[in-house]
Amino acid sequence: MLTETPKAVHLRRVSPFDFLERSALIFGEKTAIVDGETRRTYAQMLERVYRFARALRASGVTPGDRVAVLAKNQSALLEAHYAVPLAGAILCALNTRLVKSEIEYIVGHCGASVVIYDAEFAPLIDDLPAGVERLCIGGDGAVAELAALMAAASNAPLENSVSDEDATLSINYTSGTTGQPKGVMYTHRGAYQNALAEAFHANLRPESVYLWTLPMFHCNGWCYPWAVTAAAATHVCLPKVDPVKIFELIERERVTHFCGAPTVLIALANHPQVQKFARPVHVITAGAPPAPTTIAQMEALGATITQVYGLTETYGPITVCAWQSQWDTLDVAGRAKMKARQGVPMITVGAGDIRVVQTTGDPETLVDVPRDGKTQGEIVMRGNNVMKGYYNDSAATAKAFAGGYFHSGDVAVWHADGYLEIQDRSKDVIISGGENISTIQVEKVVLEHRAVLECAVVAKPDEKWGEVPKAFVTLKPGATASEEEIIAHCRERLPGFKTPKAVEFCDLPKTSTGKIQKFVLREREWRGLEKRVN
Amino acid sequence: MLTETPKAVHLRRVSPFDFLERSALIFGEKTAIVDGETRRTYAQMLERVYRFARALRASGVTPGDRVAVLAKNQSALLEAHYAVPLAGAILCALNTRLVKSEIEYIVGHCGASVVIYDAEFAPLIDDLPAGVERLCIGGDGAVAELAALMAAASNAPLENSVSDEDATLSINYTSGTTGQPKGVMYTHRGAYQNALAEAFHANLRPESVYLWTLPMFHCNGWCYPWAVTAAAATHVCLPKVDPVKIFELIERERVTHFCGAPTVLIALANHPQVQKFARPVHVITAGAPPAPTTIAQMEALGATITQVYGLTETYGPITVCAWQSQWDTLDVAGRAKMKARQGVPMITVGAGDIRVVQTTGDPETLVDVPRDGKTQGEIVMRGNNVMKGYYNDSAATAKAFAGGYFHSGDVAVWHADGYLEIQDRSKDVIISGGENISTIQVEKVVLEHRAVLECAVVAKPDEKWGEVPKAFVTLKPGATASEEEIIAHCRERLPGFKTPKAVEFCDLPKTSTGKIQKFVLREREWRGLEKRVN
Repeated sequence: MLTETPKAVHLRRVSPFDFLERSALIFGEKTAIVDGETRRTYAQMLERVYRFARALRASGVTPGDRVAVLAKNQSALLEAHYAVPLAGAILCALNTRLVKSEIEYIVGHCGASVVIYDAEFAPLIDDLPAGVERLCIGGDGAVAELAALMAAASNAPLENSVSDEDATLSINYTSGTTGQPKGVMYTHRGAYQNALAEAFHANLRPESVYLWTLPMFHCNGWCYPWAVTAAAATHVCLPKVDPVKIFELIERERVTHFCGAPTVLIALANHPQVQKFARPVHVITAGAPPAPTTIAQMEALGATITQVYGLTETYGPITVCAWQSQWDTLDVAGRAKMKARQGVPMITVGAGDIRVVQTTGDPETLVDVPRDGKTQGEIVMRGNNVMKGYYNDSAATAKAFAGGYFHSGDVAVWHADGYLEIQDRSKDVIISGGENISTIQVEKVVLEHRAVLECAVVAKPDEKWGEVPKAFVTLKPGATASEEEIIAHCRERLPGFKTPKAVEFCDLPKTSTGKIQKFVLREREWRGLEKRVN
Repeated sequence: MLTETPKAVHLRRVSPFDFLERSALIFGEKTAIVDGETRRTYAQMLERVYRFARALRASGVTPGDRVAVLAKNQSALLEAHYAVPLAGAILCALNTRLVKSEIEYIVGHCGASVVIYDAEFAPLIDDLPAGVERLCIGGDGAVAELAALMAAASNAPLENSVSDEDATLSINYTSGTTGQPKGVMYTHRGAYQNALAEAFHANLRPESVYLWTLPMFHCNGWCYPWAVTAAAATHVCLPKVDPVKIFELIERERVTHFCGAPTVLIALANHPQVQKFARPVHVITAGAPPAPTTIAQMEALGATITQVYGLTETYGPITVCAWQSQWDTLDVAGRAKMKARQGVPMITVGAGDIRVVQTTGDPETLVDVPRDGKTQGEIVMRGNNVMKGYYNDSAATAKAFAGGYFHSGDVAVWHADGYLEIQDRSKDVIISGGENISTIQVEKVVLEHRAVLECAVVAKPDEKWGEVPKAFVTLKPGATASEEEIIAHCRERLPGFKTPKAVEFCDLPKTSTGKIQKFVLREREWRGLEKRVN
């Protein structure tokens, strides 16, 4: 704490760094981080963050600089979420699953002056320009340069020097499925408000224990590095999604919360060593609607599932499928149907800040679709939970915000009760003989087949219909099913034009967060053919 | 919702009005307000607020105008917390227990253009200048002018036109125990952030039911009109603290939360018709530290007590006595000792935003007291949870913010674990023979006597010592105790100079929120004598 009077005016601006200072003051002796055998209290975490920020300054980092971090979920990456902004710099957490050229593009585009990295990723950055300083965290027997700098630095309190809450806190690069990745800018204010909302909706309390199944480099871990700290709950680091390790940590650390895409939940629920949770666990899922089967399986383990929805551009989640008490009496199928909807604005998002609009005509004029649960439109959003813009790309920013709202590219219907339900990504929609087919709807039906573990449906070129649905399927271990059987299963449950015309059995390509990469499958089908323009 | 595109930029500012729009969208059919026999859903509440705002405009209210409301806790006052800002005006909720000249002073000072009032308070405002419009809510058979105007207005959505979140939302007048009352200005941003923090700390959920034991005109009901709505919980109105009615409503409406000064809790716990709560109730208390006896009695009823602390100038609560799991094993006395502390910054308040400082020397230089649990200093605070300033009183504002922090006038120690504990209001401290005596400490000891219901200790003039402690005591119904007995009880437990030299048995004067008015007792003791300057 300060012993002299700070110069700040009495009405102060906000920064997520505030949360760490407060939790260290109040819950200083409480466990903040569990990372393998390492356990650190909030007081220790804050002290390390002071050292870390000074280490960055000693490495030449000045306010406004970009600092990239290339590491799986570990304490250094978590602490960077505080130390980098405390040094006045901007955090750029890199996706560890990118290839070398992508890492080089991003480091170059954001103009990072320092890259902090785990030794296992050293080959990805060995060709960076000489001007980019590299700072090794350690690992693989490498010298822990960051730790050495931190040890040499003072642990005395350091004041957060960022006085403008709309200043950029971090840059998160989109996965760039079309064109080059874009740098999404988060602000101190936006991350602070989103963290408060996450803490409220997930009901994070000081007693909560949060397991890091979601990569922190993905949308800054949906702002949970700040939300969990705000609540003074415990972070349990996990470098990768390993079901055995997850079950072990849930049991040993008394985990109460974790986040993950439905594929992560499928992997857990269908694992041979699956075990029921000893205590209730709140699971927050996003990336795709969880299938009824997945919800039922996870509930049987002792989990409560809440779906949230958002994009990199919305700090991760911006809607939550808030539960209504009148749904308590529904059966499993009925409840699953409700939980499959993407929901409503989070508590810090205004009712008018998320809309479903017609995307045709003048992009500056947005017209709400009727709330009939049928008419499709594009989800658009604005407000504190939406990015400031794309870094160094004003053209893309202007295009994304046509009409004053961010255009998500997600096609949805708006139910009469105000809940959004995504039909598809606009680029995933299959147009067959002039009819739109939601790939999500077809996938749900395929997933109901007893032998199916995972599924992705994409457009396959067809001479007569233009496009027809094709299903890529992974079967459950030991289960069998033929193409004809899957198609017959669908024909009983879907109109003819929505029934897959082909089924291929294979492993599905996925992003680092476990999201299935449909564009990879689609591109394979369309190779050599002219691609549809969406 | 809007069907045309609003003009707002995509990064929007916040207002507590946002909470009502969101809850009406998501929980439109949920009960928002219970007021006697009236029950209204969130959709109905929002619709009424649209009509109410239009009714104000029809009455000539223009943006920036001040609108005063003179009513006990009832739906019109709750709805005014949304309708007045929606009309672009500033809410001034008047204390219904003030005398006519005080009401006239406040209405004149804030320059209210309209006074909305319940007929029972008509005599308080019948001499206002002709330029001040009066609008009767009804009651006592009077014409419900407000309802008539609302019925004539459209219920179509109205957009919140306040674009500056630092604009004044409301003005709350201090009780003015010294000099004239001052108008404390709350901002849209400050109230929004405080409401989020209250919702987090009280753990308000959509299932929660909040009973209005605290007057809404007191610091805008600690921002709970906005916090309860943000969580989409239910408001249960209560016009005055009536223990029988409170027990009845807790049972009938399945109340989960209420707020009140310790005197309210004492009145409940000692009432002849006291009954155990059928479900857990979270009670938030402030105004004075709850005595161990009070905590034990309330816990026996099934309540969990959390102490919070703040002033009119801090939107009500700014600290919370956050519970530490290591205190779970303490006995009742040990837990009561912890709960008697005022605590730590709320989640939206920074660690450095509340300090205990030496008040001597240059008022611009604030020096923290050591965190030793012994050294006394003044609590000072800054940030979003602190008022913008006093309305039309820049001199008082500048004085209050000497050194960049608001000076509370409360004397406290800072414990090693970061928790604040108030020793006394600076003007309540007794200086006896050069030694400071905390009146709170003496009161705690008097309250331990089996016959004592309530107690206030103040300075009594003394020729030899300057001042000595005198105790004013209310005995429990049917209990007896003599002055000598009370003094002997204290002498066994306190140093001689802290032991009251006189005891008087009487009813204690209280504010509208149940806070004991020590200055009334002190003034009686000092009548005709030169008053000490603090």
